[in-house]
Order: sequence, then C-alpha cells, then structure tokens
Amino acid sequence: MRIMKIGHSRPDWTEQSPLPGSFRSIFKYGDPHRFKHPSDAWVRMMKHEFGMSDADFSQKCNEGNEPVVLNRPPALKPEQIDALVRIVGQENVSLDDYARVKYSSAKTSEEILELRAGIIREVADVVVHPRDKHDVKKIVQYCDEGRIPITVFSGGSSCNFGCRPFKGGISLVMSTHMNKLLEVNEHNQLARVQPGMFGPAYEEALNKAPERYDCKRRYTCGHFPQSFEYSTVGGWVLTLGSGQASTYYGDACDIVFSQEYVTPAGTFKTLDYPATATGPKVHGIMKGSEGTFGILVEVTMKIFRFLPENRQRFSFMYPTWEAAVDASREIMQGEFGRPAIYRISDPEETDRGLKLYGMPGFLDAFLKRRGFLPMQRCISLGNVEGDKDYTRLVARRIKAIAREHGAIYLTGYAARKWEHTRYTEPFMREDLNDYGILIDTLEASVTWDNLHHLHEGVRAYIKGRSNTMCMTHASHFYPQGTNLYFIFIARMDVEEYVAFQNGIIEAMIKHGGTLSHHHGVGRLLAPWMEAHLGPEQMAVLRALKRHFDPNEIMNPGGQLGLDDIPARR
Amino acid sequence: MRIMKIGHSRPDWTEQSPLPGSFRSIFKYGDPHRFKHPSDAWVRMMKHEFGMSDADFSQKCNEGNEPVVLNRPPALKPEQIDALVRIVGQENVSLDDYARVKYSSAKTSEEILELRAGIIREVADVVVHPRDKHDVKKIVQYCDEGRIPITVFSGGSSCNFGCRPFKGGISLVMSTHMNKLLEVNEHNQLARVQPGMFGPAYEEALNKAPERYDCKRRYTCGHFPQSFEYSTVGGWVLTLGSGQASTYYGDACDIVFSQEYVTPAGTFKTLDYPATATGPKVHGIMKGSEGTFGILVEVTMKIFRFLPENRQRFSFMYPTWEAAVDASREIMQGEFGRPAIYRISDPEETDRGLKLYGMPGFLDAFLKRRGFLPMQRCISLGNVEGDKDYTRLVARRIKAIAREHGAIYLTGYAARKWEHTRYTEPFMREDLNDYGILIDTLEASVTWDNLHHLHEGVRAYIKGRSNTMCMTHASHFYPQGTNLYFIFIARMDVEEYVAFQNGIIEAMIKHGGTLSHHHGVGRLLAPWMEAHLGPEQMAVLRALKRHFDPNEIMNPGGQLGLDDIPARR
Repeated sequence: MRIMKIGHSRPDWTEQSPLPGSFRSIFKYGDPHRFKHPSDAWVRMMKHEFGMSDADFSQKCNEGNEPVVLNRPPALKPEQIDALVRIVGQENVSLDDYARVKYSSAKTSEEILELRAGIIREVADVVVHPRDKHDVKKIVQYCDEGRIPITVFSGGSSCNFGCRPFKGGISLVMSTHMNKLLEVNEHNQLARVQPGMFGPAYEEALNKAPERYDCKRRYTCGHFPQSFEYSTVGGWVLTLGSGQASTYYGDACDIVFSQEYVTPAGTFKTLDYPATATGPKVHGIMKGSEGTFGILVEVTMKIFRFLPENRQRFSFMYPTWEAAVDASREIMQGEFGRPAIYRISDPEETDRGLKLYGMPGFLDAFLKRRGFLPMQRCISLGNVEGDKDYTRLVARRIKAIAREHGAIYLTGYAARKWEHTRYTEPFMREDLNDYGILIDTLEASVTWDNLHHLHEGVRAYIKGRSNTMCMTHASHFYPQGTNLYFIFIARMDVEEYVAFQNGIIEAMIKHGGTLSHHHGVGRLLAPWMEAHLGPEQMAVLRALKRHFDPNEIMNPGGQLGLDDIPARR
Repeated sequence: MRIMKIGHSRPDWTEQSPLPGSFRSIFKYGDPHRFKHPSDAWVRMMKHEFGMSDADFSQKCNEGNEPVVLNRPPALKPEQIDALVRIVGQENVSLDDYARVKYSSAKTSEEILELRAGIIREVADVVVHPRDKHDVKKIVQYCDEGRIPITVFSGGSSCNFGCRPFKGGISLVMSTHMNKLLEVNEHNQLARVQPGMFGPAYEEALNKAPERYDCKRRYTCGHFPQSFEYSTVGGWVLTLGSGQASTYYGDACDIVFSQEYVTPAGTFKTLDYPATATGPKVHGIMKGSEGTFGILVEVTMKIFRFLPENRQRFSFMYPTWEAAVDASREIMQGEFGRPAIYRISDPEETDRGLKLYGMPGFLDAFLKRRGFLPMQRCISLGNVEGDKDYTRLVARRIKAIAREHGAIYLTGYAARKWEHTRYTEPFMREDLNDYGILIDTLEASVTWDNLHHLHEGVRAYIKGRSNTMCMTHASHFYPQGTNLYFIFIARMDVEEYVAFQNGIIEAMIKHGGTLSHHHGVGRLLAPWMEAHLGPEQMAVLRALKRHFDPNEIMNPGGQLGLDDIPARR
C-alpha cells in the first residue's frame, strides 16, 4: 500500500515490504512490514541543510530491490557440509545465496550502502542453525579439527561488521532455535536464557513471570538498547552493550551473572555466585569477547522487579550545555540514588529535536524571553524506576539540582514522547538512504573532566565538513563520567563516508574518548585497538585468543584486532 | 605495665608490647602497643565451653617471646644483592634474619601458631623496599632475567599465606615508601593512590580533602574491611576484598577504576573510562591476581562524598534465622536503595554476642516473653549512608520490612556499639592463643536459594566436633545472595587445626559455597581451585600466568593454584 501524498513536498517513502530474496530485505531495519518515515519537519530540515529540492526527493537511488545473486560456490567440501548436516539436520543447514548473504550482513552503514549497490563482500560458505548447546559443541569440535571458521550471527544488529565472516566458513545463527527463557529463579532474581532470545520476547516473559513461570512478582530485564527489538541477550553481553536505562540498572556487563561457553579449548560455565574472591574472573574475561574466544550458549542474567506504576518522568530545559553537564554530574555524584533513563542533548541536538518533534509556540517564546536561546539551550529528559518512595525521592532531588543549575522543568511530557519513539528511529535510515542521505553514529565514554574537550574536538571535526549535521547527547551516566553519542547526517558517497568516519574515530581518540562506550569493536574499530589499549594490553587479549582458539576459527578476520585485519572493501 | 587483676578469674593478659626482634613482634596483630583483651564474659564462655579452669588460664603457652634466629644464608649470590642495592639503595635492602622472617609472614592462623613455636617455614632471601614504580620496574626486569622469585608484601594481613615466599627470592615491601595519595580528582571523584597506602591514612586524607587537596567537599574511600587499619589499598584490589560497607559502596573490585602494573611482560595502565566496550577488560583480569601476574604500582579508586552527619543506624531482633534471611532478601531486592553496613547473625552468634557484649535484663526478659528465644533469635544491625533524604528513606523501608518479618526494632545502639569494636576484634587472637584457644574464620558467597543448605552443612561439620563454637553471620549483601562468614573457636593443636580447616573448606564446597567471598585464595585455598573453577577455567588463568610471567617469578609457589603447589608444612 502506498501512502497518500500530503502536499507537494512529501517524498514517496517506501511503504512496501522488501521483495523476498532482495538485497533490501537483508538490510532493511527491523520488521519488514514496519516503517517509520521522516516527518515533514525532517524533510524541511534536509532541504534546508543540504540545499535539496523536491526534485532531489523524487528519485530514489540504490533501493536494493534486486534479487541477491552470489555466484560463489561454497569453499567447504561436500563431506564437510555432510558432517554439519549430520550434526544439526538437513533443515538447519543452508547453502543458498540468499541465506549466505543475509547471515553474513548486519547493520553497519557501509555494509548497507554496499548492499544497496549490489556489492557483496565476504560471506559465509554455509549457514548453520544449531538447535541447542550440544549441537554447538559438536560444531565447534568439528570445525576446530577441520580449521573451518565460525562467525556467530544472533540478532544481526552489529554496527561494526561484527557478523561479517571475513574468512568465510560457517555463519552460526543462534536466534533461530536457541532463543528460549529456560528458567526464572525468583528467589535469586536470576533468569537463565539462551543467547539468541530477542529483547521483546525476553522482557515479555519476565513481565509475565506470574502467568508463565509461577512467580509471585513481575520482573524486567533492565536492558533496553535502541536495538532492543532486534538484538539478543547474548549479543548484549558479548559486545558490552548498554541499555537506555543503564544509569540505574547497569550496563550489560553488570547485569550478566554467569555464562556458559563452548570454545575450542573446552566447554565451561562460570561461577554462579553474587561475588567471589577466587582469582581473576573468567566471567569477566568472556564479556566483550565478541565471538572471538568461543560461543556463548547459555547466560544467567540478573532480573529486577517490574514496577512501571512507580515510574517518575521528567524533562528540563537548561540554559547551556555547561549547565546541563554540571547538573548531571551533581545528580550522579549526589548519593541519593540514580535515575534509570537520563539524557542530555547538546545545543544542536536540542535545536533540531525541537524543530523535528515540535514545541508549542508559547513555550518557545517563553523560553526565549527567559534567555533560553536556540543553539545554546539544552534539553534533558529521563525517568526514575524502582520503589515508589525511591522514585519520588530521586525525581525530587533531580528537580532541585536542575533548578539550582538554572533549568526550567518541562514536566514528564517530553520523556513520555521520547519513549514512544525510542526503538523506531533506526527505521528512518532506509528512507534517508533512499535519497542519498547518510545518517550514522559513533560514541565514546569519557570522564567528566574531559567531556567538553571531547565534545568540542569531535564536533569541530564533523562540523568542519560543510552541510553536515552533528547532534550529540549523553545517555549513560556514572559518578565518574558519561558517554557522548555523536549522530551525523550528511550527503556523501560511500568512499567519502568511510574516510569521514575514520576521521571521526581519530578525533575521538585524539580528544581522549574511549574507542567505544557500548557499540563494541568488531572489525570497524579493530585497527585502532592496539594504539588505544597499548601493545601490552593487546598482548594480553591475544594470549587469551591463543589459549581459547589456537586455530583461529572463532570469528576470525580482524574482529577485536586479535588476528590479521583484512581490508574490508 | 601489667594490668590490674580483677577478681580471681581474669587471666593475666599480655599488656606488654612484644620484645623487639621476637617472634611475637612479627605475629602480633596490629599496633604493637595496642591491645584488646577478651572480656570477663569471654573468659566465662571459654571456661564453660571448653571446661577450662582458672588453672588453664594461668599458664601461657608458646608466647613467641624468643628472638628470631634463622641461620639460613640467603640463596641469592652477592652480585645479585649488589644489583638490588644499586637499584633501590643500601638502606632499602635487608638481609637480616628478622626482616627476612617478618616480611615473609602474614596473619594465617597456621603461620602464627608455628611462629609461636619458633617454627620458620619458607622465607625470602632478601627484603627490598622499592621507592617508586621505577624501582619496581627495574627490579622486575632484573629478577625476570635472573629468575629470582618476587613475593609482594604490603599490609601483611593475608590470612591464606599470600605473603609467604614459597620459592624464596625477594620480599618486595610496598608499604614502606609507596604509600602516598598522589592525586584527588574531585571532578571525577577519583583518587590516584600508591598501593602500599594503609586504610586509615587513605581515609583520613580523603576526609580532609578540603584542607589537603583544595577540594570543595570531603570524601570517603567506602572500603572498610575488618583489617582496615593494617591493610593497604593495593591489597584490597589484588585479593578482591570487601569492606564492611560493601552492600552500598561495592566490593573492592567495584571501587577500583584503573590500575597500573609492572609485569615481566611489560608495564601498562588500564583504561581510564567509566565504561568501555573495547573487548575483554584487562582491568578486570588483573583484579584478584594476588601478585601472580605482576606488581600493582598505582591504582585509581572511585571515591564517595563523606556525609557522616546523614548516617542512619539500626538494629533489630528477628525471631528466627529464616525470618532474618527472608527480610534481608526483601531489603536487597526492594529497589529502594541499599544500606551501607548490613549484617545478620545466626542464632549461635546472636546468643554468644548477647552474652559477651551484654543486653539489659529487662530487654532480654521482654524479648523472651515475646517469643524471641535464645538459640533461635537473630540480631541484625547496620547503617545507611549517603544523602540525608536517601538515608532516611532506606532506613524507614528497612524498618518496615523488618517488622513485616516479625522483628523488633532495637534502635541504633547495637550498631553504634558494633562500630566501636569493628577493627579491634582481631587483637583478641593473641590472648586466646596464649592459652591454647584457637579462633579462625572461613567465608563463602552463596545465592539466596542455597543459603540455608550451606549454613546448615558447614555448621554441622564444625559442630560435629565437640566443644567447638561456631558463630556465623552474613555481612555483604547483593540482590542475588550474600556471604556466610563462619567463625570457629576451639582448643586444638596445629595438626588438628589444619585437618579441621580442610574439613570446613570441603564442607563449604560440598554445600555449594564459593571457596572465598572476600579473603582471596593464596596458597591456603589453592588446592581446591582446579575443582572449584573446573579445569577449563583454571587453564584460562594458567594461560594468563604464562603470558604475564613465563619464568614464574611472580609470587610463585602455588598462589592461586597457578603453578606447582608445595606442601606448606
């Protein structure tokens, strides 16, 4: 069904599910039947920023509607395929072009731009869907003996080539069968989960714990990344993800309790204790290993009481970015508890956000009169979760601190509105890409005392390119600092895009950010790992790699920078 | 000065500082001029439990007043000693018998009992006091080339042979010079510390941050183990310690922000970010390495606002252990914040505690009338720290939950009284040992659903020996579980003690506890590591050992079970 055109300026956004078998069906974000188009305000902004006309929005480019044709016979021998079939069954082994490309691709911008142009880089020789951890163990043993590379594919939401099988071999799809919640232990507030379970199914099962698991209470997983709907529990842990409510619940590395792995060096489950002083923790070592040490086959996660009725939402306008940062630091160091979601947007993000999502005219006028000027003022929003008295207390203290820093309270409306679109923003990428507009993000963690330096340095680089938007927010807070999340939008081709992205990464490092706060490393950031960690620490990771995976079959080809880093284009 | 005897039954507790150069001066706990003797109630309890008479308390045994004589020439060659002298200066190299024994001994009961009998096991050949991290680097390089073992000594409070140089070589004393607070970064709430700084000096410096570091606020380190006065910041991190206020502030592994190490495989500082998704964290790998990978030369710790004026203390009597445990679980899972100190004592500990520390007769009668019977009832105490509104809220919620579980509120008196003796209990060990009474502890972490099983199982083993006291408390809480801290007191010789201790450890494992919640592993628990972690995870630790320390010079001789475990007696 095509949408009705409203006025002249509304582009003909694609409302059709991608054609089965097409490139577009691979790179489209999320549910094939679901769309979220840029608003008219978005289009006006694009036209204004990029000097685009209706004509520019009339002709789509590289839609990727062509059928995927690979024309590359699998490099595996027939007897190797047969062996895999014997392990998992014929129905769980795919050799067709489409499956091989689909399960070798994730959501890195560069991947998407190339798929749009029909360019296929490295792909798996065969796609295997293990039914359980015993299958995984047999597959790993077989592949280790035969030196067959294995790359794990679960949610496929990686934005750093984490799912690309640079050395071919097997794409092991965890989300097809290994996607169950195995046990809810209410006494310990723990859930044992298979790694391929997607966020919504996991959260729903926990919310419905009384009905489904005979629990007394309802629970929440506490982890809600923007990719929530299309990412899996295992992926959260392996890539060191952070949810939007991490300021209260913790990052994925804090929420995971124990893990079970199959590696070429053996199968093991880490200790199941709330704390243990028994030497360096293998549990910690495996977090963030991104498939390079072995395969996560089961994970036990901490769960939390689900108390949405107590949620307190808030939003504020600060006169300046400095005021927003200072207030945030005071909130995080105040020792009165923490908000769950907590965000501050820099002046450009605030300005664009107000234009895109609207603010009543009287409010804008009022704010301006009070000295809250465009491209200076900064919006903040969030919520508090937990016990009723606790959420009230934390919200009250946040309000008091915000006011001390000159902020105006804007009620919980903006936070509520933000919640409605929290998972759907990535759907707009296809629409923008259809008209040659790129949108992408990079993000870093930083201590408070270096926040402005990092923000200014990276922004200066991005804004140094003309006609380039740069919106920045901080969204994961700690007493010692936060993250900065840089969103850039521009019209450029893929070659320029790659060079520009490299420049941003280098600006992040140069100005003292970490390479990644919660996106992980993959192949994208691998070339910077040695310099970022230093050769001594990189050598530690490589020693672990040699131990777990002496034959380099686990997600090989530059992931984490542990082995030779092949060119990616 | 000898103390006045009060009545017939008061033993002649030693009030004299140990003779310089004596064994006693090595094993005496803490300040040589400070004593805390068992009360008359303690003596009555000993007499009652162990059938001891005044005569038994009239003759001290193995006081260790003899001078330390070693008669073992150092195994190092003169040119090796000269090389060390060239690095740190003559004044920082000791070869004398006393220093060699002193800096090879810590506070394991078995060590103390043997030192009392004049038995000296493995000692360092030479004691070296590095002045700074550059000295440490030179020493490690020199020793790695010459295959000279290095065992680090800092506070010397280890209770698992963590400081015993099983292979001789160097005892490297970190607390002599490397004991400074280098920097307080108020903006980031971080303190950069040398590892040999003792708890009180560190805490005092933070409390006085405005006067000493030109800060706007006062800070606290948040880490207060029982050994606080005689343990060092570096030791806390390396052994995965927990402070008594860990339920709020976190364990040492949570409080440490970044670390700098000198290892045979190089010198490095881990990343300084509040979070980072750049692969497995070397920062995590080093925590708990107990000197076996390298030497911690600088550590950056999170610090917290010091707000003693807001502290809310509480204590309760629960009718039963089950009620105390259930209430504690509800408190930890309640999502309203957490107390800082939080403890529950089992019936035997409660009963003995009331006898030892006294409870007004009217209160005891009142409690009994209400059904709070001896050997059933359980005391709980603690405090809440942080923002004023927060401490009030958390204390109020704890009270409400305690009452829901049948507890009676006993005001903050017991908590305040406990605070006064929190660091001095270990001083009593010498007095008890003087009369042949042993007191020691073992501790494990456990999830809620296995708490009673572990408690009953270990208690059954300990109480299976006649005339043996067993007092248990939980003192470090998490939403998923807690620790159990077993204190046992009995009269036995060292041979029986060792066998009995092994039996307790085996009972802990058999009933599903972790080997150690916060005491670390050392040589004591090393024989159980392989079975506890499993061979696959033990192999990971050994792979790291091979990487960092291929020549096995770093705290060698069974520590953590990473190399051959020599007999210790």
